[in-house]
Amino acid sequence: MNIRYILYLCSRVLLILALLLLLPLAVSVYYRDGCIPAFLIPIGIMMTLGLLFGIKKPPRGTLFAREGFAVVTLIWVLFSVLGALPFLISGAIPSFTDAFFETVSGFTTTGASILPAVEGLPKSILFWRQFMNWIGGMGVLALALALAPLDKDQHKKQDRSVGSDVYIIRAESPGPMFGKLVAKLRFNVQILYIIYACMTLVTIIFLLLGGMDLFDSICHAFAAAGTGGFSVRNASIGAYNHAYFDWVLSIAIMLFGINFNIYYFLLTKNFLNILKSEELRWYLIIIGASTGLIACNIFSTYGSVSTSIRYAFFQVTSIITTTGFSTVDFNLWPTFSKGILLLLMFIGACASSTGGGLKVSRCIILVKTAIKEIRYHLNPREVRTIRCDGNHVENAVVTNVSSYFVVYMLVFAASTFLLSLDPDHSLETCFSAVAACLNNIGPGLDGVGPMSNFSHFSDFSKWLLSADMLLGRLELFPMLALFHPAAWRK
Amino acid sequence: MNIRYILYLCSRVLLILALLLLLPLAVSVYYRDGCIPAFLIPIGIMMTLGLLFGIKKPPRGTLFAREGFAVVTLIWVLFSVLGALPFLISGAIPSFTDAFFETVSGFTTTGASILPAVEGLPKSILFWRQFMNWIGGMGVLALALALAPLDKDQHKKQDRSVGSDVYIIRAESPGPMFGKLVAKLRFNVQILYIIYACMTLVTIIFLLLGGMDLFDSICHAFAAAGTGGFSVRNASIGAYNHAYFDWVLSIAIMLFGINFNIYYFLLTKNFLNILKSEELRWYLIIIGASTGLIACNIFSTYGSVSTSIRYAFFQVTSIITTTGFSTVDFNLWPTFSKGILLLLMFIGACASSTGGGLKVSRCIILVKTAIKEIRYHLNPREVRTIRCDGNHVENAVVTNVSSYFVVYMLVFAASTFLLSLDPDHSLETCFSAVAACLNNIGPGLDGVGPMSNFSHFSDFSKWLLSADMLLGRLELFPMLALFHPAAWRK
Repeated sequence: MNIRYILYLCSRVLLILALLLLLPLAVSVYYRDGCIPAFLIPIGIMMTLGLLFGIKKPPRGTLFAREGFAVVTLIWVLFSVLGALPFLISGAIPSFTDAFFETVSGFTTTGASILPAVEGLPKSILFWRQFMNWIGGMGVLALALALAPLDKDQHKKQDRSVGSDVYIIRAESPGPMFGKLVAKLRFNVQILYIIYACMTLVTIIFLLLGGMDLFDSICHAFAAAGTGGFSVRNASIGAYNHAYFDWVLSIAIMLFGINFNIYYFLLTKNFLNILKSEELRWYLIIIGASTGLIACNIFSTYGSVSTSIRYAFFQVTSIITTTGFSTVDFNLWPTFSKGILLLLMFIGACASSTGGGLKVSRCIILVKTAIKEIRYHLNPREVRTIRCDGNHVENAVVTNVSSYFVVYMLVFAASTFLLSLDPDHSLETCFSAVAACLNNIGPGLDGVGPMSNFSHFSDFSKWLLSADMLLGRLELFPMLALFHPAAWRK
Repeated sequence: MNIRYILYLCSRVLLILALLLLLPLAVSVYYRDGCIPAFLIPIGIMMTLGLLFGIKKPPRGTLFAREGFAVVTLIWVLFSVLGALPFLISGAIPSFTDAFFETVSGFTTTGASILPAVEGLPKSILFWRQFMNWIGGMGVLALALALAPLDKDQHKKQDRSVGSDVYIIRAESPGPMFGKLVAKLRFNVQILYIIYACMTLVTIIFLLLGGMDLFDSICHAFAAAGTGGFSVRNASIGAYNHAYFDWVLSIAIMLFGINFNIYYFLLTKNFLNILKSEELRWYLIIIGASTGLIACNIFSTYGSVSTSIRYAFFQVTSIITTTGFSTVDFNLWPTFSKGILLLLMFIGACASSTGGGLKVSRCIILVKTAIKEIRYHLNPREVRTIRCDGNHVENAVVTNVSSYFVVYMLVFAASTFLLSLDPDHSLETCFSAVAACLNNIGPGLDGVGPMSNFSHFSDFSKWLLSADMLLGRLELFPMLALFHPAAWRK
């Protein structure tokens, strides 16, 4: 493990976080909410650390996948620890465990909260909470790379060893296939971030047009863009009880849950690739079918077709994109609707979007693996191949997806098991709390439903769920690999 | 699809079922409970069908895996339909759906019941219910093969095409690896059935020694041997409330949950193979650890170390072997204990035992796959190999296990989804009902807990759960393959 180089890279990223904190600091200055030190102190710490380790570049040495994993994990943990400081210093969240949980939840775009009420909090703190959703959506390291390359030498080099940037981006970007688009790295990360920023801006404008005030519009657009789901209102989007906002936000999060490569294809007028995308097709089919089924199922509760469709569509997009906004207490819906939502929690959004979960493309490959396996049993001599988007999928990718699913379910089972140690929680609460955190959604069912929060868990459980959020956001392997002895061998 | 040959094989097996029905008929004659026609009519139907199609052997033709799958599926469905007739004719269960559910539950050794009370039923009907558990435990086709070979030509042939017997045994015997032991077929099936019968006899003797009457002893020994879990008492084994019976039965089911190859090794004094068996080691470790954890967790409820250990050990063995006996209402235990039991439901017993679930050996391979995958991410150039019992596990087996897990989870999710259509059931009820049926356990949690039953489900749900029981018992592929168009192509 090349510790000195890891420290160097992390320090440089910390400088970027310091820059990002200037924005809530400005909000604090504007609203005079007395939270200036809450941001100045962490900025000072980050600048000191960043300048201490991030200026003098150590000799590069050999870099392996493990260094990439270590950088990614360390950065996300550092961000979560340092990002929690404003909550602690301002007194908004007095306990460090709680503040850490809230920050991890923000950066991983989970949106699970330990705060029973948010409306009384200082404006700058609220802003920071929402801004974390936005930063985490596209990835904290991707942002760093968009602003400045971490490893300048790499682009000059022509040797076989892959630069750490590739490992970092690969570890942070969600989905089974490491797309061609990402391979060009910095240039493409910048394009993605520009698309991301523009879409956020459009969302803000649409919210403003509906009459939402500027602060709320920006905050909710941030949470929608990152598919995070934090809100500045206690009752989430339900507080406005306004069909216009429901539709704007649900369409927005649906669009943010689409693979960003699709937008790149749209910009480059490569429409054929968009039509060929099975992931996009299934993503839209699943949303449509789930909305229809739930709308029928809850029709008797609301008595109106348009209201049922509106609530159903909002909740379906909110859950499948793993955002976690809510307009109504879906915990009170019939079991069938809750079952669909639970299923959507696992399916998740598209790969390379800002959403979490297993990802639609992984689910497609899993279903195709199942069908292929049934066929294989009928004729064991047949070669097993899977096609996706019209192309042959490499066997290595298929194996990776199956193995990912196995690891995912093992982590899920182990977490639920450990969480059930926390007394006084139903099995449904434990199960859905882990589902909500590992898939980066936010609200679950029963005790962690949309009208509840995570404050009633023990400290141990909060750390466990924080770990689950990070595991889910980084797609398991970067973090798990660090626990393998092979990562630390010379 | 070679329909004529399939019909011929099925008819021959039906003759065996007719023979088996003579036993409950004898019980009916002995107790004069008025159920003689309830057994005579089905025997008549089976004899007619059997003699009609099973005497003249059709030309063999080419037999593929699909014919094996079709025979296995058809036989199990036929057995369940015809085995339900005694319930219907005697009036014990007036609805065909209910009678079919109960029979499937019996043959698949699930032990889920739609009967709110069993104590008032005629003795012969009770006996038949328990006897089904015993027949299903080792497999209905294995029994047929032990008594008479289905395909006499096969042993003379030396050509490359595998006989249908192999496909049949492979489709019916549980577990990931198709052991060498089974390959010799008829001889070994006979040995396995002799071991099975002897162990059942020992269980009966032990129960008699404790003072249980002969009828109850035989009935409970049948249910224990098949790890089925039906009981002739409303309160299951809890009705006796006697530590001796608890210990005898929990040790018995634990032994029936062990891979029967182990007993073969024991008989042939091949102790090295027993010591090398990772599955046996982990099976015992899991039972020990779970018992310890649950005993600590429920100690405050019962206030006595020995009672806590006794209840915990009984429930752990009952669930991991997928038997489903109960002594207390574990639905009232703390969430942690229920969480452990839910986990054990999925792990299941050892391969080639009479138990269901994923099987311990599959779980071992899954965990090793996960660890291997983490290592692979650290060093993608490394060759991925897994060792088990000291031997290298073929890649095809590893892929099969992962794919099995994927198919299993998809079936599980789809079933839970469909079951949640049944109104007025909690998500925990639906989830654990599917877990209990797909893993052939019997009782689940909440609405299908050990003190409840499955009678409150709709007819659609009962058919769905019956399908799940069959899917679980036949390990998915034989049945699912028949839905693939390739199975019906020329």
